[in-house]
Amino acid sequence: MNTFSCPFCGPALEATVASLFCPKCNGPLLVASVPRPSRSFRWDRPIPIDVFRDYLPLRKVDPALTLGEGDTPLIELGRIAARFSIPGTLWAKNEAANPTASFKDRGTVVAVHKAVELGFKTIGTISTGNMAGSTAAYAAKAGLKSVIFVKEDTGLDKILAAGVYGPRILKVRGDYGAVFRKSFEIGRNRSIYFMNSVDPFRIEGYKVTGFEIFLQLGSRPPDYVLVPVSAGGHLIGLMKTFLDLKADGLIRKIPTFVGVQAAGCAPIARAFSRGSRSVARFPNPRTIAHAISNPTPPGGDIALKMIRDHGGLFIAVSEASIKRAHRILAEEAGLFVDPASATVVAALAPLSQARKLGPRDRIVLVLTGSGLKTLDAVDPKSIDFRESSLDDLEDSLA
Amino acid sequence: MNTFSCPFCGPALEATVASLFCPKCNGPLLVASVPRPSRSFRWDRPIPIDVFRDYLPLRKVDPALTLGEGDTPLIELGRIAARFSIPGTLWAKNEAANPTASFKDRGTVVAVHKAVELGFKTIGTISTGNMAGSTAAYAAKAGLKSVIFVKEDTGLDKILAAGVYGPRILKVRGDYGAVFRKSFEIGRNRSIYFMNSVDPFRIEGYKVTGFEIFLQLGSRPPDYVLVPVSAGGHLIGLMKTFLDLKADGLIRKIPTFVGVQAAGCAPIARAFSRGSRSVARFPNPRTIAHAISNPTPPGGDIALKMIRDHGGLFIAVSEASIKRAHRILAEEAGLFVDPASATVVAALAPLSQARKLGPRDRIVLVLTGSGLKTLDAVDPKSIDFRESSLDDLEDSLA
Repeated sequence: MNTFSCPFCGPALEATVASLFCPKCNGPLLVASVPRPSRSFRWDRPIPIDVFRDYLPLRKVDPALTLGEGDTPLIELGRIAARFSIPGTLWAKNEAANPTASFKDRGTVVAVHKAVELGFKTIGTISTGNMAGSTAAYAAKAGLKSVIFVKEDTGLDKILAAGVYGPRILKVRGDYGAVFRKSFEIGRNRSIYFMNSVDPFRIEGYKVTGFEIFLQLGSRPPDYVLVPVSAGGHLIGLMKTFLDLKADGLIRKIPTFVGVQAAGCAPIARAFSRGSRSVARFPNPRTIAHAISNPTPPGGDIALKMIRDHGGLFIAVSEASIKRAHRILAEEAGLFVDPASATVVAALAPLSQARKLGPRDRIVLVLTGSGLKTLDAVDPKSIDFRESSLDDLEDSLA
Repeated sequence: MNTFSCPFCGPALEATVASLFCPKCNGPLLVASVPRPSRSFRWDRPIPIDVFRDYLPLRKVDPALTLGEGDTPLIELGRIAARFSIPGTLWAKNEAANPTASFKDRGTVVAVHKAVELGFKTIGTISTGNMAGSTAAYAAKAGLKSVIFVKEDTGLDKILAAGVYGPRILKVRGDYGAVFRKSFEIGRNRSIYFMNSVDPFRIEGYKVTGFEIFLQLGSRPPDYVLVPVSAGGHLIGLMKTFLDLKADGLIRKIPTFVGVQAAGCAPIARAFSRGSRSVARFPNPRTIAHAISNPTPPGGDIALKMIRDHGGLFIAVSEASIKRAHRILAEEAGLFVDPASATVVAALAPLSQARKLGPRDRIVLVLTGSGLKTLDAVDPKSIDFRESSLDDLEDSLA
């Protein structure tokens, strides 16, 4: 049995997968951290969630439920550090290298294990893109059915990239927050496990990324971790890694976490800068970073509390800086990501104004998704492209 | 210094990067295999090409030139094996998990190391898609310029997905084989290293995939390896891995290799079935598997010889079977690949007719690229997609 806890109200002993919200404040519950003296990394296991299973709410790991998520590269970004005059060492943790090309797979694989353990035959989610593809793919692998609710303005490309795995896709007219709440009601009525953005098991899966970063840096924590923030689940999961490591005495201090949002939809960053305790709806969201355009982030209050409790910060970045960062990442680091991922590069300049970065600082940027799903973010006019005959080919290069 | 060899004519001592073709038969040269008694896997190194550097033609590995290629998952395909009545165990080696979402990155990283070692400032390639993106991305990471020649019918999506890294792209009117030959002439004149499909250093990089398969299977070779074949370089590289392992006494027998082509463009499979010693141009190529639609494969003769020398075979698969395999891979294995990758699943039925597969056989399918670059291969009509209001949402699921 797993135990759940509300970061504001404390333990919630009666929680079930059908209702993972706090009975007192109605906020999302998290899996309670229960340090065990004997827990450790199991190096001999080939599947990342199995290596870190002592830290995850799973009884066992079934190879038939994985798609090979995790073990993503941590790449040093020497040219980007120089370009932004960052005195420390800069790395990218490239989560686009996951099976469905986004970080979502880390959470989906854990939630799918839980769905199978609990006997669900159908899983579901709400998404505009990455989570749709991830949930449908893991359902396909596990032999489960899946149901995806998408926003009414979701484009055909995203529907194809998720629909290929065989889910039922419903394009829902209406408020996204209302669909989020409705999904849990439907889930209870129809025995569908909706593994949405702040599902506590999904969040546990994101911890594995944090463990990998820790190990890839030689079993030392980074000084800063920058992560794009939408619903808040990814940030919460990554912070939980380092809280687990601290609880076990493996690190003394958790990294400074920097939650990054697009200024065009920055409900949590706005609440942070205003000193608010809770996150209000962000009016008229508008940003090229669609994957983090969430005006009512369900994990917002928790993310805000955790960042404040541990000396982190939120940064909102402009559209122009996102577009510039998106291009620089491709042209100077060879990394083609979605605009949401580029926000963490755009945040480097404001971060170095907010905090004094030193030459020994180790900074990790978490890149969350592939640029191949957002080709419309590439400006054709920016490309050096021309036609040539075979005979003129060499002259065309001059 | 590296030494080169022609599989037909023997050692070619005078070869340089500017002319890596046999002075006698004009076929592509390969890096000569020179077993050293002391070579071994270097487990303590984080970069795959560094782990296997003793087997690669590199003096050193520079972390600044990698994008985190390799360490791709080997996933058991239980449901696919059952569906095709395969008595043994079936795995997919998912090369779409590489940084630019195809196997090409394995070769590009080795060739880029060589380009930097030799002082080139510009690299180039000829491609319709995957190799363009890979070459441009590694050039960006290394701070080199890049030049990409694409076919005149290359679509905008593929140009965007490669162009984002900042190469010069030239769309060339004229025969693809002629552009291939012309590129080397231009390379010599303008000091551009054209790392094309059968570049011998690129081929050496593909060996790393083979080493990973060997290790992921518990340091035992698989019985069968199925790989999509275009120019031939990938197949040649994968076979070279097991020849190296055999030379070192680490395995007794190399796996049976199965080169898979689309029947709509199957020059090597046709030569194989006819018993020809050389591969002739395939007329009117036409297949949904664009990534392997190469009517004049430059490595065809070598691939044919290696497959014959080691008891392998070539299989050509129909368009209908490719489309079906493409869909089954997504819906029953959660793997969204390009149609070229799906050919190896389509080849399972003809393989089990050609060879007696047993319950202890271990079969590896090499999947070469992501479906996200070929969304047009997904039939929108195959997707279970409808609209709903919020109120009708639950009824819409019935």
